[in-house]
Amino acid sequence: MNPAHVQATHLSGPVLVIGTGLLGASIGLGLRARGIDVLLSDPSPSAQAVAQDIGAGRVLPADERVEPQLVVVAAPPDVTAAVVSQALRDYQDAIVVDIASVKTSIFEALAKDPDLTEADLGRYVGTHPMAGREKSGPVAARGEIFTSMPWVLCPSELSLPGAVKTAQALAIDLGAVVSRMSADEHDTSVAMISHLPQVMSSLLASRLQDTPAHALSLSGQGLRDVTRIAASDPALWVQILGANAARLVDLLYGVREDLERLINTLEQPEADGARLDMAQLISEGNAGQARIPGKHGAPPQAFAWLTVLVDDTPGQIARLLTEIGEVGINLEDLRLAHSAGQPVGLAEIAVLPSKRHELIEYLTSHGWKVVQ
Amino acid sequence: MNPAHVQATHLSGPVLVIGTGLLGASIGLGLRARGIDVLLSDPSPSAQAVAQDIGAGRVLPADERVEPQLVVVAAPPDVTAAVVSQALRDYQDAIVVDIASVKTSIFEALAKDPDLTEADLGRYVGTHPMAGREKSGPVAARGEIFTSMPWVLCPSELSLPGAVKTAQALAIDLGAVVSRMSADEHDTSVAMISHLPQVMSSLLASRLQDTPAHALSLSGQGLRDVTRIAASDPALWVQILGANAARLVDLLYGVREDLERLINTLEQPEADGARLDMAQLISEGNAGQARIPGKHGAPPQAFAWLTVLVDDTPGQIARLLTEIGEVGINLEDLRLAHSAGQPVGLAEIAVLPSKRHELIEYLTSHGWKVVQ
Repeated sequence: MNPAHVQATHLSGPVLVIGTGLLGASIGLGLRARGIDVLLSDPSPSAQAVAQDIGAGRVLPADERVEPQLVVVAAPPDVTAAVVSQALRDYQDAIVVDIASVKTSIFEALAKDPDLTEADLGRYVGTHPMAGREKSGPVAARGEIFTSMPWVLCPSELSLPGAVKTAQALAIDLGAVVSRMSADEHDTSVAMISHLPQVMSSLLASRLQDTPAHALSLSGQGLRDVTRIAASDPALWVQILGANAARLVDLLYGVREDLERLINTLEQPEADGARLDMAQLISEGNAGQARIPGKHGAPPQAFAWLTVLVDDTPGQIARLLTEIGEVGINLEDLRLAHSAGQPVGLAEIAVLPSKRHELIEYLTSHGWKVVQ
Repeated sequence: MNPAHVQATHLSGPVLVIGTGLLGASIGLGLRARGIDVLLSDPSPSAQAVAQDIGAGRVLPADERVEPQLVVVAAPPDVTAAVVSQALRDYQDAIVVDIASVKTSIFEALAKDPDLTEADLGRYVGTHPMAGREKSGPVAARGEIFTSMPWVLCPSELSLPGAVKTAQALAIDLGAVVSRMSADEHDTSVAMISHLPQVMSSLLASRLQDTPAHALSLSGQGLRDVTRIAASDPALWVQILGANAARLVDLLYGVREDLERLINTLEQPEADGARLDMAQLISEGNAGQARIPGKHGAPPQAFAWLTVLVDDTPGQIARLLTEIGEVGINLEDLRLAHSAGQPVGLAEIAVLPSKRHELIEYLTSHGWKVVQ
């Protein structure tokens, strides 16, 4: 994999965006903001019209012969390969990229496509911007959603250098952080850091369907965090899980093995070694969690947390953070703990460990209640 | 289960706290802040001394005969029953409560204890304050950690009304939100909303031990959220999982069944009904996640989120929240999205859906970049 720092180049346009959902329309908005000519095309005339109305570009004219520099295929994963194939044939001088969240299956379909030559495949680069969320549709589009987010380029052996450079220019023009890996590396990576977490969160959250209200009333931040992404869109995830099934299932075999071991242990919690097995599960979780990179892709860093009591009223958190800003201490992370039954908020603040004591002193002396 | 709103009564003291770790010392600090006489006892002389030094109370004098109104057993779950039994015999006129995070196994041990009479058991109430975190030890103690957190009372059939009232007074004096359920209801509840999430988070995070760096570099907020509690303390969790093994394993059977079904589906993603199975998993996750109560124990509410671009420098977030406060819009939730490779932060803000449009207008007009 190449370093994230690549030499910047810029698009000249015109750029044709096929598929004007959240991501396609956002790409259009972002490129228009840079003054690039953007053409829009979507099987849904209304989605196409909405994207044009919000300023993502102009609808592809039926009569006019256009010669785009770049075609961005922003279609659902299921149909991406077919749309890319058509685009490569319709626009013989254009570079074509897709932005689907799985890459191998799409390239395999294109490589098998009898209508495509090696020269055609040379003009194609698979990419994946790690952006966009539960929301969908052009109305939710914003030109800046790619800012400082990873955008992975997965060129094939056939991809021409010029095609890779153009794909890179798209990501850079939209403010993303470019990285490069093979389609296989990409799909294996997202299976672990994106698809498995989704599955684990959904498996847990689905158990809550029958949980009695008195139990749910004890819910804390832990449960909320682990289940947050369980709110994701089924329609999209069916396509993602289906397209990356083989890699995901390999990871699930490992989970099943650990789960099986844990169940055996918990069935006889007093047996020899049972305590050790349980400790091992939690310790291995500690070790894995500690490997997740910190803010700004920095190496993992144990931030020091402190929790401050605040009235749950407008402006309170702001006043707190203003005072933190005044000491010149940088906020590394922040979350509001949900309080139960009382109009009191708990602001959890992460700072560099070296700053924690100073900050507690300062806040306490300014009348804040630092609770831990 | 009783409503959380109960009539306030207050402790007179003296209160003896046995076990001066994070929670015991925090209870001492909280009660001292209310002017209540607190005595401290811990098998570790140094932990005992530290707790006294931070103002959690005075070390129990060897010579002086004390007659506490209330004994709070804040020992590790493993030894709690034995310590409660001893306390009931040592202090014949005192109410005795414990604060361990599992309840049934402790009461069962006490009920079997030949040294205890029914009268003794009448003076005991099992309780569980839902507070305290990865941190441990008296140094981390704060008197306010119970503020607005749930505190569950689990009286047995033998518990006397006066004992329950005293246990309630402890929780109320420390600012907690009291709820009441049977030990069985409690243990079944926490197995689902606390112990199962811990296990799922640890199972996922442990997979990250062998994940290559280029994959970890794509980590997003989703992975961070699902694995946050995987950083918890193995020593404590071994005792919790062990003590609630039977209820937890029942839930894990269900997870294993769902996981098995998912594996079969992903092994043949093109088979009839495979797509439907995948959609069902995600949809059931949606349904379960939507049942988690909102802030302040309110019914679940879909807040409207917006994301604002901020420089990652001291005071920036504060300035943003100040301006939000100025429009009088209340912040329902807030998180800082970690950006990758660039000194730019993304502040994700949750407000009431009715306020979202107004806030976007206002922030945009004040020069903020609302990214979605």
